[in-house]
Amino acid sequence: MALIVQKYGGTSVGNVERIQNVAQKVRQFVAEGHQVVVTVSAMSGETNRLTALANEIQSQPCKREMDVLLTTGEQVTIALLSMALQEIGVSAVSYTGWQVAIRTNDIHSKARIEGIDAEKINHQLSDGKVVIVAGFQGVTDEGDITTLGRGGSDTTAVALAAALKADECQIYTDVDGVYTTDPRVVPEARRLDYVTFDEMLELASLGAKVLQIRSVEFASKYKVPLRVLSSLKEGGGTLLISEEDFEGLNMEKPLISGIAFSRDEAKLMILGVPDRPGVAFQILGPISDANIEIDMIIQNQGVDGTTDFTFTVSRGDLRAAKAILEETAATLGAREILCDDTIVKISMVGVGMKSHSGIASKMFKVLAENEINIQMIGTTEIKISVVIHESMLETAVQALHQAFELDQ
Amino acid sequence: MALIVQKYGGTSVGNVERIQNVAQKVRQFVAEGHQVVVTVSAMSGETNRLTALANEIQSQPCKREMDVLLTTGEQVTIALLSMALQEIGVSAVSYTGWQVAIRTNDIHSKARIEGIDAEKINHQLSDGKVVIVAGFQGVTDEGDITTLGRGGSDTTAVALAAALKADECQIYTDVDGVYTTDPRVVPEARRLDYVTFDEMLELASLGAKVLQIRSVEFASKYKVPLRVLSSLKEGGGTLLISEEDFEGLNMEKPLISGIAFSRDEAKLMILGVPDRPGVAFQILGPISDANIEIDMIIQNQGVDGTTDFTFTVSRGDLRAAKAILEETAATLGAREILCDDTIVKISMVGVGMKSHSGIASKMFKVLAENEINIQMIGTTEIKISVVIHESMLETAVQALHQAFELDQ
Repeated sequence: MALIVQKYGGTSVGNVERIQNVAQKVRQFVAEGHQVVVTVSAMSGETNRLTALANEIQSQPCKREMDVLLTTGEQVTIALLSMALQEIGVSAVSYTGWQVAIRTNDIHSKARIEGIDAEKINHQLSDGKVVIVAGFQGVTDEGDITTLGRGGSDTTAVALAAALKADECQIYTDVDGVYTTDPRVVPEARRLDYVTFDEMLELASLGAKVLQIRSVEFASKYKVPLRVLSSLKEGGGTLLISEEDFEGLNMEKPLISGIAFSRDEAKLMILGVPDRPGVAFQILGPISDANIEIDMIIQNQGVDGTTDFTFTVSRGDLRAAKAILEETAATLGAREILCDDTIVKISMVGVGMKSHSGIASKMFKVLAENEINIQMIGTTEIKISVVIHESMLETAVQALHQAFELDQ
Repeated sequence: MALIVQKYGGTSVGNVERIQNVAQKVRQFVAEGHQVVVTVSAMSGETNRLTALANEIQSQPCKREMDVLLTTGEQVTIALLSMALQEIGVSAVSYTGWQVAIRTNDIHSKARIEGIDAEKINHQLSDGKVVIVAGFQGVTDEGDITTLGRGGSDTTAVALAAALKADECQIYTDVDGVYTTDPRVVPEARRLDYVTFDEMLELASLGAKVLQIRSVEFASKYKVPLRVLSSLKEGGGTLLISEEDFEGLNMEKPLISGIAFSRDEAKLMILGVPDRPGVAFQILGPISDANIEIDMIIQNQGVDGTTDFTFTVSRGDLRAAKAILEETAATLGAREILCDDTIVKISMVGVGMKSHSGIASKMFKVLAENEINIQMIGTTEIKISVVIHESMLETAVQALHQAFELDQ
């Protein structure tokens, strides 16, 4: 018997029939003797409907009231799912965020969980009940309703699993796991049985939109085994665990777990700026101040006492970043500004590469053999990223996937 | 400066535009220097939508979960009204039932209010805010969500007014007050400026569906001045007060305040039952046990040691009551059973009749002059009811309204 926390997203509970399907799935786990806690999102479409109502009234709706409004979405789902379980003979009880004291700070619309009162849930579990908890929502010490922001229901599930010391946290979604890369680009892409939290963080932030980063961070921090699986297809999904737990499995860790890529990249270059201390801050500070996120940064020293600066931003931020950079260029007496929004980023991720040299050189060799020009390179302990021209994305990912035998 | 509790029903907040109208109305009171607490219902149609979802899942939805589900309706309204007020420059804050601790017992779907924590509301009022409280809902000591049943938002408003010691509780509805009788039957029917709680209880229970009986009882118990008025039409509406307060106004109280009537009446007679102690219980007990409400009862003693029993029920209960009565008749050896669902009940209500004899005889005279046969008569301290044939309803009400000068 295990204690399992499950999370079903908005699509999985999008109508009565789907809610009934979720109830059937939960019943299977109960029949196998497990204790089950279920977290659900609002029915798909509901959040948009409520947001539209608010926007009719206020163009910038009051965040406190927006949280009061939106949290009704999950409250509807928990009640309906509890009814659906009871209807098929499974004892169940629903709780909103405040009812199980999912305590958060008071940053409305993106509050952080500070604690959960496990007692009430444990009591109902030992009474043989399935406990259903509204995702995405919490309550402040003053009794105000809060929401956790994007992907908040995933965070609720992981936080519940941590507080209850659950054996596993299962996130049901519309994909059946984490893949070595996007199957639309590489049909041979393979579902990973295991991936470490650190790898997942790199894969997620690079565009494999399976899980919200915050919930992975949370799971990593509290060492909650996190399984991603499909609510429609059968299958074991992908289990996210710590590197430590992975070593405990006594399996050979592949050097590379996956290849992520992002098309939403643009490059800015400022050429011929004075090569002196503080110049990086002078260039990048104003960009950050405008809330534009900078990803990769490269500085090339020139021979004439000047230097060239290259960095990447999201394509949507290119125009704003360029305007800021032009002012900076004038101040610094830079020679030229160049922009390019025809680039993409490809990243190979794997904790195995820590202990193996030669991954980078093999990657560069594969790209060279396919006549793909590398524009920028960036590395972390478990990741190598390259920026290339967008026309070469598919060729590069397919060649790397094959060369590193990710399909096997 | 007064402290006013206002309640707006589902129709008054049925869409964004109407919510904005309510906000404008509230702003007027704030501009006049009043402190305002607003209670709202779910937007019209919302409760039906949610109930339909539940019924798709369970034919008899779990009452606890039904309360979780339905209370989202008012939660949506409070958030939207708070936004609408803020948008027009009125400081406002919304609270659900549990947030202001509207404590109830645990009878889901028709819980009773046991107490309200006035502190939070008082604090916000003295901060200059309009406080918006979700109607119809409360919370048990164990933290379970409850609803107050039909008309629950009226009850919430009155309970808030009592707890806050408000100067007035205003119930906004789609009628502009309490009338001497139904204007559809008597076009000269006049809106009453004042009516006592006791009169209102008789008028309400007899079919003048302006206010829920429970909220009037509550207002009467805690002596909360209760005003019924239209959310669409301007006007002072009707103020419900205690008889005592009425006397303080030094106005002449009319003998009769209003004439109520009900078409939903049916009569059952059981003839020739043994005239012995306990026979009334033997006849009426099984009817009550079947949850059929009995209204008027008459027993006529016969000359041959038997007696006749006549009583009235709702028309919808006639068939069931008859079936039960037939069994009883067989047991008691009764002679005959007669049924009649072509009757109506007309009631004249007024605290003034306590101190004036002659009201009843004048009523009977008016009916006789109009050749209306009286089938049954019932009286209380402030009410005289007669049962007549349904074809004479309009004639009777019009004649009585004129004879007692209710149009003046």
